[in-house]
Amino acid sequence: MKHNHTNPLNLSQAREAAQADNPVPADSKFSAVKQWLLRRLLRTAGNPAISVVLWDGQEITPAGVAPVGRIVLRSRGAFLKLLSHPDLQFGELYSSGQLEVEGDLVALLEAIGRSLPPITERGRLINALNRLYLLKRNTMAKARDNIYHHYDIGNAFYQLWLDQQMVYTCAYFPSPALDLEQAQIAKLELVCRKLMLKPDETVVEAGCGWGALALYMARHYGVMVRAYNLSREQLAYARERARREGLAERVEFIEGDYRQISGTYDVFVSVGMLEHVGLKHYGELGAVIDRCLKSSGRGLIHTIGRNQPAPLSAWIEKRIFPGAYPPSLGEMMQLFEPWRCSILDVENLRLHYAETLRHWLSRYDAAIDQVQAMFDTPFARAWRLYLAGSIAAFTMGDLQLFQVVFTRHHNNAVPRNREFLYREAGKADIF
Amino acid sequence: MKHNHTNPLNLSQAREAAQADNPVPADSKFSAVKQWLLRRLLRTAGNPAISVVLWDGQEITPAGVAPVGRIVLRSRGAFLKLLSHPDLQFGELYSSGQLEVEGDLVALLEAIGRSLPPITERGRLINALNRLYLLKRNTMAKARDNIYHHYDIGNAFYQLWLDQQMVYTCAYFPSPALDLEQAQIAKLELVCRKLMLKPDETVVEAGCGWGALALYMARHYGVMVRAYNLSREQLAYARERARREGLAERVEFIEGDYRQISGTYDVFVSVGMLEHVGLKHYGELGAVIDRCLKSSGRGLIHTIGRNQPAPLSAWIEKRIFPGAYPPSLGEMMQLFEPWRCSILDVENLRLHYAETLRHWLSRYDAAIDQVQAMFDTPFARAWRLYLAGSIAAFTMGDLQLFQVVFTRHHNNAVPRNREFLYREAGKADIF
Repeated sequence: MKHNHTNPLNLSQAREAAQADNPVPADSKFSAVKQWLLRRLLRTAGNPAISVVLWDGQEITPAGVAPVGRIVLRSRGAFLKLLSHPDLQFGELYSSGQLEVEGDLVALLEAIGRSLPPITERGRLINALNRLYLLKRNTMAKARDNIYHHYDIGNAFYQLWLDQQMVYTCAYFPSPALDLEQAQIAKLELVCRKLMLKPDETVVEAGCGWGALALYMARHYGVMVRAYNLSREQLAYARERARREGLAERVEFIEGDYRQISGTYDVFVSVGMLEHVGLKHYGELGAVIDRCLKSSGRGLIHTIGRNQPAPLSAWIEKRIFPGAYPPSLGEMMQLFEPWRCSILDVENLRLHYAETLRHWLSRYDAAIDQVQAMFDTPFARAWRLYLAGSIAAFTMGDLQLFQVVFTRHHNNAVPRNREFLYREAGKADIF
Repeated sequence: MKHNHTNPLNLSQAREAAQADNPVPADSKFSAVKQWLLRRLLRTAGNPAISVVLWDGQEITPAGVAPVGRIVLRSRGAFLKLLSHPDLQFGELYSSGQLEVEGDLVALLEAIGRSLPPITERGRLINALNRLYLLKRNTMAKARDNIYHHYDIGNAFYQLWLDQQMVYTCAYFPSPALDLEQAQIAKLELVCRKLMLKPDETVVEAGCGWGALALYMARHYGVMVRAYNLSREQLAYARERARREGLAERVEFIEGDYRQISGTYDVFVSVGMLEHVGLKHYGELGAVIDRCLKSSGRGLIHTIGRNQPAPLSAWIEKRIFPGAYPPSLGEMMQLFEPWRCSILDVENLRLHYAETLRHWLSRYDAAIDQVQAMFDTPFARAWRLYLAGSIAAFTMGDLQLFQVVFTRHHNNAVPRNREFLYREAGKADIF
């Protein structure tokens, strides 16, 4: 599927506007300093295949590259902000319209991402920031605020661009012919198969979104589910859906943090919550899993991850996902190793997330007028940048998507291999 | 398949012999001390479901257990040695015949393994030993000695109990009906499929044993292989086989350590070598992989592992695998994360190794007279204990078997899922 990522939110023909707004006289000394600073910024970014256009019309392109797009800075203030903290300010300036992108936004972000040196090579400051980050705690109150920030901005907003079932995590495209609705069902089915659910087993779900997985497990596999979530908007939606579909007896939606999970279960599942837990709390989450899993218990954690430890983009952390941290696989093992959990299967679905996000961005762009009407233009632009940047990050391998299946160390009732995941005669029509 | 693990090497009816050898007069005070020490030892081991018989015929069984077998200690000296360092001395005394096992050896070792507390709970001493262990270095000279110790004791010995192709790593039983020969071919095929080999690609193999995988890859997938090994006996065998099968043009066997690998390749593969590398050297091995892998390169590491970091059994380290260390998955990530390698797939084949080892032990027991004639009784008993103990360790979940597939971080030529591994129309007859 080919999507068109040209920006539907260009506020104006930015370059011309910028020139009119900033009638700076051509001063060759100032111009030389500007040029030097800009070339330095581009060099730090690894000289990406882009051009930068300043408010006075000056355009700079790193030597020897064929630019895939242009960044237009509309004022001297925007330029200085970008120089001071590019990782944060790119997003801030784009949202406010002080930075405009000409050309395909995703392609431009990929060009920058491709040239950026690995985070580990970006020097001591980043490492210091990383360590600082690890000191931050997601207490229960803080975790609640973080979740409200992202998930309680209105179900109507998410309905504009998610699939019908409101699944806000990586879909699964076993064939490229699947549409988003089908690919989300295929993902739910894949998770159920990996968990080897049997009728009347008990399942606890940590972080259940709008309830699609919990309801799917109950309907198609006959299990009993207790699903925890902090987002009140999501819980209200999920409870209403369970009632409507006659599944309220089998699925209980509970307002609570993962630390509040009580009881014991055959199965632990968590899809898209670990990103919000924070590395400092993996010991607590691991203890919860150990406490709530029966002796033959098994589980699955589905999470955005990294190839190596790295801090989250400063802008994403500030505006989109406060308190979030995608772990490396090595870091994830802190969840399991203290309790001797046995890892049975790890699958990396990275490119499936890029595909999912392309569907989301395409739907989002189609609904952009409604988003602007619901919120405002800076909000609409910020979310567009977040979706486009995520496509770029998954496509270039800056972000990964791990599904990790685990069980108690002594559980020998495990399958011989993963062939059973791919059998056609499944319960879902789609597989 | 049901195997019979009763000991073909019982030197005599141990209990009666012991009583005759040690005519200690019944001294009730000494007897009380002995009993107290023995009960303490059993308590430390978690009161396993076994009995212990002393040289004077005294028999002690932990309260409330139904013993699956008996340990017979033939002298006071053996008893004191076992008390002083059970982890090392159990193997030493068993090998020399001063400790005898009555009943099924595997079942008895499983009973002990099941009751032993996790290594992390065995106190500070173990943790200190663990840290000490991590200081040990497998220099190139030391690595060579370690490999000679285990692998250069004679191809004729291994031919007695391995499969025809001499594959000395975990086999793969997609169906329980496979025999060992078939299951080893299925493993070679599985590795090739995971690596997605294409004709004329170049492959480097680190640690190639008797060459079965290298030759299989060249024959069935048309790739060019350079295979490194330190064991001269294995290399001589592998080179001769390549010549005989007309594959010497496609497969080059090189005497060398993984640190001596030169050139660049499409594929890196290592089956059963990482166990010998030692945690301190993962940075070096990771650097070798990074140096030798082309930009679209991919790889597979197959290794014995753990659910959590733990030192190797002292006896296995001393007598069977000097310098060896099976890592946890978290520890393994030290190979990949510094170079941003992307983990695509992790599979745990733990129970396949238990099945493989049952085949090996069964063949070994059938050839025990020949082993004794080649070496001596203590050697034959030591290797029997190692095979039986390994069955127990994999069955109980003390050891894992990880196959980890990885690629460069930016490589997008990766499969959608693992369904292709399980397609029937493969190149092998067996799959």
